[in-house]
Amino acid sequence: MKTYIDCLPCFMSQALRAGRIATKDETKIKALLDDVGCMIKDIPMDSTPPETGKMIYQRVTEITGVKDPYKKIKESNINEALALYPKLKQIVKNSPDKLLTAIRIAIAGNTIDLGLNREFNILEDLNKILKQDFAIFDYEEFTSQLEKAKSILYIGDNAGESVFDKILIEELGKPTTYVVRDIPVINDATIEDAINSGLDEVAEIISSGTTAPGTILKLCNNKFLHRFNNAELIISKGQGNYEGLSNVQRSVFFLLIAKCHVIANDLNVKENDIVLKANGSIIQRHRQPM
Amino acid sequence: MKTYIDCLPCFMSQALRAGRIATKDETKIKALLDDVGCMIKDIPMDSTPPETGKMIYQRVTEITGVKDPYKKIKESNINEALALYPKLKQIVKNSPDKLLTAIRIAIAGNTIDLGLNREFNILEDLNKILKQDFAIFDYEEFTSQLEKAKSILYIGDNAGESVFDKILIEELGKPTTYVVRDIPVINDATIEDAINSGLDEVAEIISSGTTAPGTILKLCNNKFLHRFNNAELIISKGQGNYEGLSNVQRSVFFLLIAKCHVIANDLNVKENDIVLKANGSIIQRHRQPM
Repeated sequence: MKTYIDCLPCFMSQALRAGRIATKDETKIKALLDDVGCMIKDIPMDSTPPETGKMIYQRVTEITGVKDPYKKIKESNINEALALYPKLKQIVKNSPDKLLTAIRIAIAGNTIDLGLNREFNILEDLNKILKQDFAIFDYEEFTSQLEKAKSILYIGDNAGESVFDKILIEELGKPTTYVVRDIPVINDATIEDAINSGLDEVAEIISSGTTAPGTILKLCNNKFLHRFNNAELIISKGQGNYEGLSNVQRSVFFLLIAKCHVIANDLNVKENDIVLKANGSIIQRHRQPM
Repeated sequence: MKTYIDCLPCFMSQALRAGRIATKDETKIKALLDDVGCMIKDIPMDSTPPETGKMIYQRVTEITGVKDPYKKIKESNINEALALYPKLKQIVKNSPDKLLTAIRIAIAGNTIDLGLNREFNILEDLNKILKQDFAIFDYEEFTSQLEKAKSILYIGDNAGESVFDKILIEELGKPTTYVVRDIPVINDATIEDAINSGLDEVAEIISSGTTAPGTILKLCNNKFLHRFNNAELIISKGQGNYEGLSNVQRSVFFLLIAKCHVIANDLNVKENDIVLKANGSIIQRHRQPM
């Protein structure tokens, strides 16, 4: 996804939010906003938003001196999600379509996002999303690819959400590789967060090599790129990964909540809609006349 | 009121909103945001937000070539308010405290604000505000000053809201001067808007001389300053005027809705609270032991 004009003020808001979490020193936060303000004119509008996100969060660290401002919040979100884990398993167990329920739960986990100016209550959001209609629902294509796939590449998003991903990985029932960011950026999951979420019990965990809050292929390491290019089924969680991968010519299933109007417009859905979307190339292939 | 750090991303959002209203040319809007982004580092944090607002809306005009982007919206808001006028008069007539009801109506009119990222439904807001508790309610001081005052200086805010101000001016029952901005800035009322709102029937209309979306004394003309310094009762409507006048050593009554969290914090109230506030100097004078 390209950068939209609406993303520009949002970059400033993100910088303010991250700055506030990193430090109480208003002089440093002001310096950060001055810096991001000046950055605006140099943002290529054909780059993806996480590419700018990467620069902003690097400046947060450089200016405040805090390497991982979201560390404590991530720990707390993982612990809150782990406490819900038995309940989530029970919900899946009692549901008529266990796979679909696990997909809904994994999407509900995507509500744990601190990059956006958006409050969340995980239990409330979960109950809503368990009943919510999908705005895009490529479930048939998903189950068809899942059936044929021998293994899965699962690109994670936020820490805490990662516990909800575990529920889905367990239902997928295939060897899975869980992909995380290379360094802490916003509250996105790193290898440490994935392990703390118990994902090492159900998946191989690898870093994509990216230091951006989204999967930008040109910033990824070779190990990930090899897996990405050869995977039989790719699941991409959340906005940052969608922003990075939506134009990639590769079969990817996007699971997300459209948490801002820019993403919602790009997907042609409404804000807060839930989405299970097979990217363009798949739809084209599947819908071509035989 | 000084500029808070939270105002900085909001300046970018305001620029985007104004740019979108002025033009459909995304290149111009991008140029505007680049410009405002660079402006951030030069904003003195001890200046008031409308001083920056002035620069931003000047740049909107310079970059888009549109002198009064809000012209049609203002006309439409005035007409909508005029259509409500007989109903508003009836509400005042049927109420036990006509002055207080007219104050509530004038505050409800303050919901018509296009500088903020905030949707409004004037009838819904009116019904809510007619019953809403005041977060700050210096009504006794207000009626006491009103009784003694021979004339009133009433500093208006937005076009459309101006019709609601007419209702209050009629209830005040004293010779009133209605103050407007010198040029179109956001949807703030100008002399033309005030006349279209019927204010010339109940008040003398003057320009404060300011080209900012708020009353900044150092930018005002001598005629206004003379009236301001000698007025027996000053009413100031809305956020922009509060931001400009909150630290002025002069008895002013602020009537407003706290429409953003920054103003709410400055006033020590909650967002969407309604306020009738005598500024510090009055409270001090009135509460001093005799």
